[in-house]
Amino acid sequence: MTKTNLDLVRECDNFPYYQDNRVAYAETLKNYHEFRVSGYDVTLGYIVNAVVEKFPWPEHIWSIDSAAQTVTLVTDTNADPAQRSELVAQSIAEAVKLGCFEVLKGWRNEKYPLYGPGGEFLLEMERCATPLFGIVSYGAHMTGYVEDSTGLKFWVPRRAKTKQTYPSMLDNTVAGGMSTGEIPFECIVREAMEEASLPEDIVRASVLPVGCVTYTHVRDSRAGGETGLVQPEVEYVYDLKLDPSVVPKPCDDEVEEFNLLTVSEVKDALARGEFKPNCSIIMIDFFIRHGILTPENEPDYLDIVARIHRRMEHPTASHCLK
Amino acid sequence: MTKTNLDLVRECDNFPYYQDNRVAYAETLKNYHEFRVSGYDVTLGYIVNAVVEKFPWPEHIWSIDSAAQTVTLVTDTNADPAQRSELVAQSIAEAVKLGCFEVLKGWRNEKYPLYGPGGEFLLEMERCATPLFGIVSYGAHMTGYVEDSTGLKFWVPRRAKTKQTYPSMLDNTVAGGMSTGEIPFECIVREAMEEASLPEDIVRASVLPVGCVTYTHVRDSRAGGETGLVQPEVEYVYDLKLDPSVVPKPCDDEVEEFNLLTVSEVKDALARGEFKPNCSIIMIDFFIRHGILTPENEPDYLDIVARIHRRMEHPTASHCLK
Repeated sequence: MTKTNLDLVRECDNFPYYQDNRVAYAETLKNYHEFRVSGYDVTLGYIVNAVVEKFPWPEHIWSIDSAAQTVTLVTDTNADPAQRSELVAQSIAEAVKLGCFEVLKGWRNEKYPLYGPGGEFLLEMERCATPLFGIVSYGAHMTGYVEDSTGLKFWVPRRAKTKQTYPSMLDNTVAGGMSTGEIPFECIVREAMEEASLPEDIVRASVLPVGCVTYTHVRDSRAGGETGLVQPEVEYVYDLKLDPSVVPKPCDDEVEEFNLLTVSEVKDALARGEFKPNCSIIMIDFFIRHGILTPENEPDYLDIVARIHRRMEHPTASHCLK
Repeated sequence: MTKTNLDLVRECDNFPYYQDNRVAYAETLKNYHEFRVSGYDVTLGYIVNAVVEKFPWPEHIWSIDSAAQTVTLVTDTNADPAQRSELVAQSIAEAVKLGCFEVLKGWRNEKYPLYGPGGEFLLEMERCATPLFGIVSYGAHMTGYVEDSTGLKFWVPRRAKTKQTYPSMLDNTVAGGMSTGEIPFECIVREAMEEASLPEDIVRASVLPVGCVTYTHVRDSRAGGETGLVQPEVEYVYDLKLDPSVVPKPCDDEVEEFNLLTVSEVKDALARGEFKPNCSIIMIDFFIRHGILTPENEPDYLDIVARIHRRMEHPTASHCLK
């Protein structure tokens, strides 16, 4: 079955919108507890009720309010990020020991940051645990392309068969998650080398930051582990126009091969659902910014543009160095 | 006082968000009636209560429900767009005769379309009346620029002193509203000739559709007429890289002059608040898409990108020709 571009966007941005249906939105929220940190009057993530029931919340660390549907990390008033992170790490370690959650079996040994209102750093936690807390995560995606007289062609990798998540699906030329302390530009430079063997000097000189896409994903079985977990994501977007002589090559075991696809080959692969869901919207965003998808040829243009730039329900980071 | 880019976005996109503050959002909505059309279970616009009280709603055409805060255009079940438009036109004519509203003194003699869920055309109404009904309006904005060894330069017009709205402010190279039946591409080609004397063949050959910006504006005194009116807007965005030999020139009496400004001159003019509010966000969008504003140099990057691609609270059009 052929998928429209809006189908692809909806697969990725599949958490409901208040303005679309207030009743349905309120019903959905009943399935979640709000994740909070003491001292901050703001929701930092949505924890699905099944996780709230199963997680071994150590009593001296967490306060659960079943009526208000909140789960609050309780700390001293003057707690710092290191102290909060340690309390969260202890709790996650307990859950790992008890074998409560499938997602925790995919331990990455990478720390993802959590930010409060105003963008201040609150704490960090193991990457694979973030969907349990439903917190915003950050990444960077780059589209590498070449242009000749016949038009644009895209360097599209196929994920390894052995990848834990979305095996054998098509991906963006380079993509990766941002660990605590990393900035988008350095993330994309690092991943370009690690995933595509692209020389650092070429990437630094030519990669162009062109915006970001944001969406709220509810995980299905393709992501591995528990389903229904909420994953709000920010992906900083980069374009890299490459000289035809520069050929990306797999460097680690995450990528099987790179192929150079035409616009129409990418469109066909999108329609067949061959791209990893969030990578498909990076391609759609590229097509919109480069005039390939237009208001006159894409029936869902407005809906797509708004949904791939979703305003997050929780505070987000600033990666500004100034 | 210097304005940040987020200040400029907030001036333009100044209707509250549900997720930011649910209580404040609900309080704001109390100031409005929902505009509805019989047969469609959807809100098509927000009419400020002061307008509801003052507008001479002919009883055989409108049903006002003060408890539910709705204003419904009542028609036969099988009414068509021409019939609905005629009923609305009669009502607006009555309001003009009674001199109820300042905004109706700025008669444009242009018809703006209203779309229902699924994007079907419901009716059209006089352009200057749309803010009274709070319906979504559509336009197209183009940034004309040149690139040389020193970087990018932008063709920035200053609006005529005699313009009814935002006199003497800076504008985008070309910008205009889309009347009923018009498509974005033809709108920008027409306006490029009318406002900037740009030859049609150059525009058709080189103008690039690069997305759209969307926001919900609550009008202040600079817009002229009543304040507090809601104006959700969709602006299709175009870039046009021009040869240095092509110089835009005023053609009608709406533009005073065109100047070629550097990136830093545009940034300074933005910070001084010299751009018409919605034109400032078109420049900001250009800066983001072209890597001039980056996650590392713009502290409010994520907030800006999400807000200038606001998901509308009402149904929107499809301008697709397929």
